[in-house]
Amino acid sequence: MAYNLLKGKKGIIFGALNEQSIAWKVAQRAVEEGAQIVLSNAPIALRMGELNKLAEECNAPVIGADVTNNDDINNLLTQTMDHFGGGVDFVLHSIGMSVNVRKAIPYTQNNYDFTHKGFDISALSLHRVLQAAMKMDAINEWGSVVALTYIAAQRVFPDYNDMSDNKAVLESIARNFGYFYGTQKKVRVNTVSQSPTRTTAGSGVKGFDGFINYAEKMSPLGNADADQCADYCVSLFSDLTRMVTMQNLFHDGGFSFTGVTKEVIERMGE
Amino acid sequence: MAYNLLKGKKGIIFGALNEQSIAWKVAQRAVEEGAQIVLSNAPIALRMGELNKLAEECNAPVIGADVTNNDDINNLLTQTMDHFGGGVDFVLHSIGMSVNVRKAIPYTQNNYDFTHKGFDISALSLHRVLQAAMKMDAINEWGSVVALTYIAAQRVFPDYNDMSDNKAVLESIARNFGYFYGTQKKVRVNTVSQSPTRTTAGSGVKGFDGFINYAEKMSPLGNADADQCADYCVSLFSDLTRMVTMQNLFHDGGFSFTGVTKEVIERMGE
Amino acid sequence: MAYNLLKGKKGIIFGALNEQSIAWKVAQRAVEEGAQIVLSNAPIALRMGELNKLAEECNAPVIGADVTNNDDINNLLTQTMDHFGGGVDFVLHSIGMSVNVRKAIPYTQNNYDFTHKGFDISALSLHRVLQAAMKMDAINEWGSVVALTYIAAQRVFPDYNDMSDNKAVLESIARNFGYFYGTQKKVRVNTVSQSPTRTTAGSGVKGFDGFINYAEKMSPLGNADADQCADYCVSLFSDLTRMVTMQNLFHDGGFSFTGVTKEVIERMGE
Amino acid sequence: MAYNLLKGKKGIIFGALNEQSIAWKVAQRAVEEGAQIVLSNAPIALRMGELNKLAEECNAPVIGADVTNNDDINNLLTQTMDHFGGGVDFVLHSIGMSVNVRKAIPYTQNNYDFTHKGFDISALSLHRVLQAAMKMDAINEWGSVVALTYIAAQRVFPDYNDMSDNKAVLESIARNFGYFYGTQKKVRVNTVSQSPTRTTAGSGVKGFDGFINYAEKMSPLGNADADQCADYCVSLFSDLTRMVTMQNLFHDGGFSFTGVTKEVIERMGE
Repeated sequence: MAYNLLKGKKGIIFGALNEQSIAWKVAQRAVEEGAQIVLSNAPIALRMGELNKLAEECNAPVIGADVTNNDDINNLLTQTMDHFGGGVDFVLHSIGMSVNVRKAIPYTQNNYDFTHKGFDISALSLHRVLQAAMKMDAINEWGSVVALTYIAAQRVFPDYNDMSDNKAVLESIARNFGYFYGTQKKVRVNTVSQSPTRTTAGSGVKGFDGFINYAEKMSPLGNADADQCADYCVSLFSDLTRMVTMQNLFHDGGFSFTGVTKEVIERMGE
Repeated sequence: MAYNLLKGKKGIIFGALNEQSIAWKVAQRAVEEGAQIVLSNAPIALRMGELNKLAEECNAPVIGADVTNNDDINNLLTQTMDHFGGGVDFVLHSIGMSVNVRKAIPYTQNNYDFTHKGFDISALSLHRVLQAAMKMDAINEWGSVVALTYIAAQRVFPDYNDMSDNKAVLESIARNFGYFYGTQKKVRVNTVSQSPTRTTAGSGVKGFDGFINYAEKMSPLGNADADQCADYCVSLFSDLTRMVTMQNLFHDGGFSFTGVTKEVIERMGE
Repeated sequence: MAYNLLKGKKGIIFGALNEQSIAWKVAQRAVEEGAQIVLSNAPIALRMGELNKLAEECNAPVIGADVTNNDDINNLLTQTMDHFGGGVDFVLHSIGMSVNVRKAIPYTQNNYDFTHKGFDISALSLHRVLQAAMKMDAINEWGSVVALTYIAAQRVFPDYNDMSDNKAVLESIARNFGYFYGTQKKVRVNTVSQSPTRTTAGSGVKGFDGFINYAEKMSPLGNADADQCADYCVSLFSDLTRMVTMQNLFHDGGFSFTGVTKEVIERMGE
Repeated sequence: MAYNLLKGKKGIIFGALNEQSIAWKVAQRAVEEGAQIVLSNAPIALRMGELNKLAEECNAPVIGADVTNNDDINNLLTQTMDHFGGGVDFVLHSIGMSVNVRKAIPYTQNNYDFTHKGFDISALSLHRVLQAAMKMDAINEWGSVVALTYIAAQRVFPDYNDMSDNKAVLESIARNFGYFYGTQKKVRVNTVSQSPTRTTAGSGVKGFDGFINYAEKMSPLGNADADQCADYCVSLFSDLTRMVTMQNLFHDGGFSFTGVTKEVIERMGE
């Protein structure tokens, strides 16, 4: 069902990799709701080639950018503004990567070069994009920025490793930059804290199956899926949510405020 | 701008008193978005007569109910289900009253009969409505319940008096009932924590002017107004937010996560 | 081990019932640390007679008080001040009771007379005690008030029933009264959110065994026990924590910030 | 007043610079309470020479360590264990530095090399110390680690710049490492979120005077000072708080849960 909620709006979607990606679904839903978009991802992700399919479907240019590189970001924003003949109204940041996770290095044995790398890609990238955008005035008044995050920023999920810390600082950056961008230009910045989702990134986390299963049993409405997340992001890009800013918004079927469920208790045995 | 977001949906709106009321705006926006509604308020509020204007405009029946009276609530729900030929898809709870506030009794000198009364009207009423609705199966699957609250439930605002405690328990009831209603019937329950708003109820709080003024200066986007709150409620009643439940959602221009602003610091003098 | 941390301090301990009670342990530890105390409980609890044993051990008078009755509270405070020849330095509020829990009435079918009763005993009682104390100037400057609470005030634990709402408002009262008492007389008010504990009250909750077992597995340090809680309360009554106020302090072995543990995941099966 | 609370305990205190430093006061209080300590700071801080005064007073060795350098940390821990003939019982992490702050670069124009540097010193250093300690088994069972932080990790204080993000990740690291160290060895890790304090580091923040002044007026008990913070840290190092872990503990006179005070409202004018 489409409502024309984003009619006339322009946006940038970071992080669509394949059909499982939340960013992929957000791109589709945004276009369905009347938006025009630009797709961006890391050069290495572009080489996998699947993104072209989405680009065609959405009639959207693909502009590669290494989000740890200021020049790349500037170039992306310049090209985007050229393409649209002006600024954008929304941005989705769906970017995260930890070398420590990839190499299965336990949290208590993290390699700090890897930690810096993950911090740069997963968290600082949001600051870089917003700083460049502010300098170039690339986001229109009342624009909306959403970054995807996870509840490991609030509570410990042991296998989530240093991505927990990355998400904590990502949320902090959203809050802090949200203050300045809001004061200056009415741009809002929020994070959406999504249920564990079977994406390529999600599945890379050790023990993901046991984990998503537990979350399902601990969520009164079950886990939120990628399609539902896309719906929620659309509502946050729309003009219906203009005064929501600097928030971390749980989209998780109630997981975050459930202490325990009967189902989980029953499985605990004695 | 209307999007048909609530097309085919039915709802109950509690608490519209006059054009300043948030509930009044929500009623108008819900209808504008394609919903059919029933309006309810306390018998004494109905006698003021303004609600009929809204009822006409929205083509909605008005059904009085004292929300501290189970029979009244049962009657309201029965009549509503008769009217719609079935259950509802959304409920707005915009109800609050403190006798201690009205009589300007300071928090540290509260009269406990008044406290009980305010607790019953402002907080327990949500439990009563949900309990009756669950018993009568009056809310459809994937229905959405929103109750309005205020950040005094988290932090102290001295003039807000015992309404702070009432809002704290209101949010707790939303969370707890949200668990059970979600598990049983996929109904979601959330609270919206709104900026101070110049309604009849809001203005009744002592020192309201200094207070709303401070909130304005402490909110990067300024205070959210009643119209914007109505927009936000519409998004929460829509199918775009199905997996958001048991949350307290700040709708406040960033007030809740702002520690201080330059404007406030400057006014502090030495 | 004793440190003389409370040497010269006087206090009131509410809620010691028998040797399992947290309040019982707090009384013992406070006296061990050099404090003088008064013990109080409901008349019905006194009739059980065990409290006399503790009174003797602690050389403390027992003064009965129904905490839903202002006269009883005034009487208790008057007698206490007579006994000590002045005000007190600390108060422990370890009081909670829900008729809905006792009668095993599910949350979604709560009887509202019972709800009011539980609200009065479990939460409003703190307000009553503090209001009376403020009026009579019964708490000395830099005094410390601690009320025991549970994390069900933040997240849903289905079997905890309406005690969840009672604890939410208890914490709100601590916060709000803490503001006024702090501003006026440097008295601090905090709540301690304790692990589930095998007390007479705790064990009354349906499914308590499965529940305490789950908490144990979800706490990196295991559940905190009553003795450890008493230690913690002593630190909060001491002069080492004078600037801690209006806080809800988790004393739970890490439960509150643990999203999941390996042990719990393993027990979930598929 | 001393209580022998830390009799027989050994600890490492990071970050004492001069008499204004919180770490300086913690060192003094810990020794006063019967502890033996080792003092550590960055080589550049040692060259200022004041630390020797404290070392003499506390009869403590000074061991320099650049906390962004694993070898330095290993060396510090080895020397410390040699000195004590075994592991330590407590650690204070009072370390923070932002090049962006020092150079007065606004948050929205941050230099990312500086950001990485600040992140490494202010936050990652806690991870480095804990990882090295775990590997070398340098913290005894039931040991206590405290890191100092600031409420800018939760809410925006515009002049606090990227230290806000650094503190957010510091708190996340405390939580995450607290899980693993707790599970493995009963070591607890907490952060203390202190009022703004007139230390050399604090005073370096732009607009610090207006800021500390505002905090004073927003805190029912006033701002907590460095001496009081030392008292609180002592309680957290003691055996009275063994089950408190993975918490962020506000030590701020009530600032964190105060929405507004009458004094602040009055100064707002119209």
